[in-house]
Amino acid sequence: VIDLLFLVGLGLYLDLIPLRSLVALARCDKIIIDAYTSGPKYVVEELLKILKSTGKDVVLAQRFMLEGEGIESIVWESQDKDVCVAVVGDPMIATTHNALAVEAAASGIRAVVVPAPSIQCCAIGALGLLSYKMGKSVTVVSPKNGVVYEYPYEVIKSNLERGLHTLLLLEMDLERGYIMTPCEALKILFSIEQKRNEGVLEEQTRVVILSSIGTPSHRVCVRTLGELLQKCDNCGDPPYSIVILSKKLHPLEEEALKYAERGLLNMVPIEGSREVLEQVANILFR
Amino acid sequence: VIDLLFLVGLGLYLDLIPLRSLVALARCDKIIIDAYTSGPKYVVEELLKILKSTGKDVVLAQRFMLEGEGIESIVWESQDKDVCVAVVGDPMIATTHNALAVEAAASGIRAVVVPAPSIQCCAIGALGLLSYKMGKSVTVVSPKNGVVYEYPYEVIKSNLERGLHTLLLLEMDLERGYIMTPCEALKILFSIEQKRNEGVLEEQTRVVILSSIGTPSHRVCVRTLGELLQKCDNCGDPPYSIVILSKKLHPLEEEALKYAERGLLNMVPIEGSREVLEQVANILFR
Repeated sequence: VIDLLFLVGLGLYLDLIPLRSLVALARCDKIIIDAYTSGPKYVVEELLKILKSTGKDVVLAQRFMLEGEGIESIVWESQDKDVCVAVVGDPMIATTHNALAVEAAASGIRAVVVPAPSIQCCAIGALGLLSYKMGKSVTVVSPKNGVVYEYPYEVIKSNLERGLHTLLLLEMDLERGYIMTPCEALKILFSIEQKRNEGVLEEQTRVVILSSIGTPSHRVCVRTLGELLQKCDNCGDPPYSIVILSKKLHPLEEEALKYAERGLLNMVPIEGSREVLEQVANILFR
Repeated sequence: VIDLLFLVGLGLYLDLIPLRSLVALARCDKIIIDAYTSGPKYVVEELLKILKSTGKDVVLAQRFMLEGEGIESIVWESQDKDVCVAVVGDPMIATTHNALAVEAAASGIRAVVVPAPSIQCCAIGALGLLSYKMGKSVTVVSPKNGVVYEYPYEVIKSNLERGLHTLLLLEMDLERGYIMTPCEALKILFSIEQKRNEGVLEEQTRVVILSSIGTPSHRVCVRTLGELLQKCDNCGDPPYSIVILSKKLHPLEEEALKYAERGLLNMVPIEGSREVLEQVANILFR
């Protein structure tokens, strides 16, 4: 018998979970839900309810449980039972889960990754952008001890020079209850522009704010940076992300963005998604 | 009543389909499966069988049905019934589906995208690479009328200059029965290097070949370009893709790659995935 540690993706909303993820959760003796790095709180809460109702041994993980010595303890547990670590979105986007997989493998435990739609893929699909026009993505974090982290500005600059869009992920620490808003993120980025003055972010730079992608509150706003600096609007509920558009869009992208903003191109769930998840979970878990 | 056109992602293997995709397929009066652009033939064939057994009106689309006038005809059909266009992987990776969504929206039909795990996400997860180290991806195509398309070489160069990995998708035309092999792709790329001599691809350049990612034949091979030029090996069955690694890897990536090659980090399905899909489809479709 080979010991297994499953890294299970949950997708961005209840019904975006792949079948394989459900099968993995059904099989695991212990389920640890990563509740602090990402995703809509609602998804974690509902999933927790459904899993508990099936009698599963399930816990919400705090940060310390998935880092440092927490990793060792999960690997230790995987040695006598199948353990699932469940993550909203895709399980291999955050470095901490990579470390977990590597640590398990180093102990001879097979780390099985179950992929799921993450914001990286969904942002492209929700906006109708062309995938080969996406540059490297980067996370905007709040200043630490007064020090502003300028790396996202450099990534945007480098992508713009190559005619590519930049997906910005915004810092989120659900344990502290902190969710960076798009307005906050743009203010930070613009303060870097004012300091460095390299002409990366200009008044006419086009910005897309994405809110609650893939959920019933799915919303997309296309603005110029100038408009947002004058009168900022977060464009809905968290989780948020931002795309800084390249200067030149493909005509198809231009059209798609227009429709995405009006909701004629969207990624909203089909009605009854919670019931469907419950129904399928009951069958697979019994 | 609003007319709907669903662009439905199927994921990379039968059980990687999100629940929402199944709900959409269950709801649609007409299902068109894109069978020529991508993905394992097996997934399309099995899905077709399952859908047909539930009495669905389902067709395999040839290329012409999803391009040019084919688009108009799908949009036309969406005006009096719900139509699903189902795509292996994520539905918004190929330009042709973007065009379809835009055309539908232009006619007042709501285009609903259902995302699913694509090779873009799965490659990162399968190899344990860090997502912020991924540059722009690009498709390698075979020479047309003797002309070699050099753009992939430029993308690799630009990514390497920034310390980023490059995901190479390989040309696939299932209608013609053509699937580019990794060996073929590397030969094309190396011929560009020999011509341009810019030192982008060297003997010691590290190459990862990914085959059948997310399926039971899932396999990963890490080689140097020199090794592969001397004695090439496609590392398993199609579908294929390649990652050209950046010169400097994060220690976690180095470890993860080692385990991915040995199968200690993997993305293989859990046994019985076909049966689970059939079971769930039967419930949702009845």
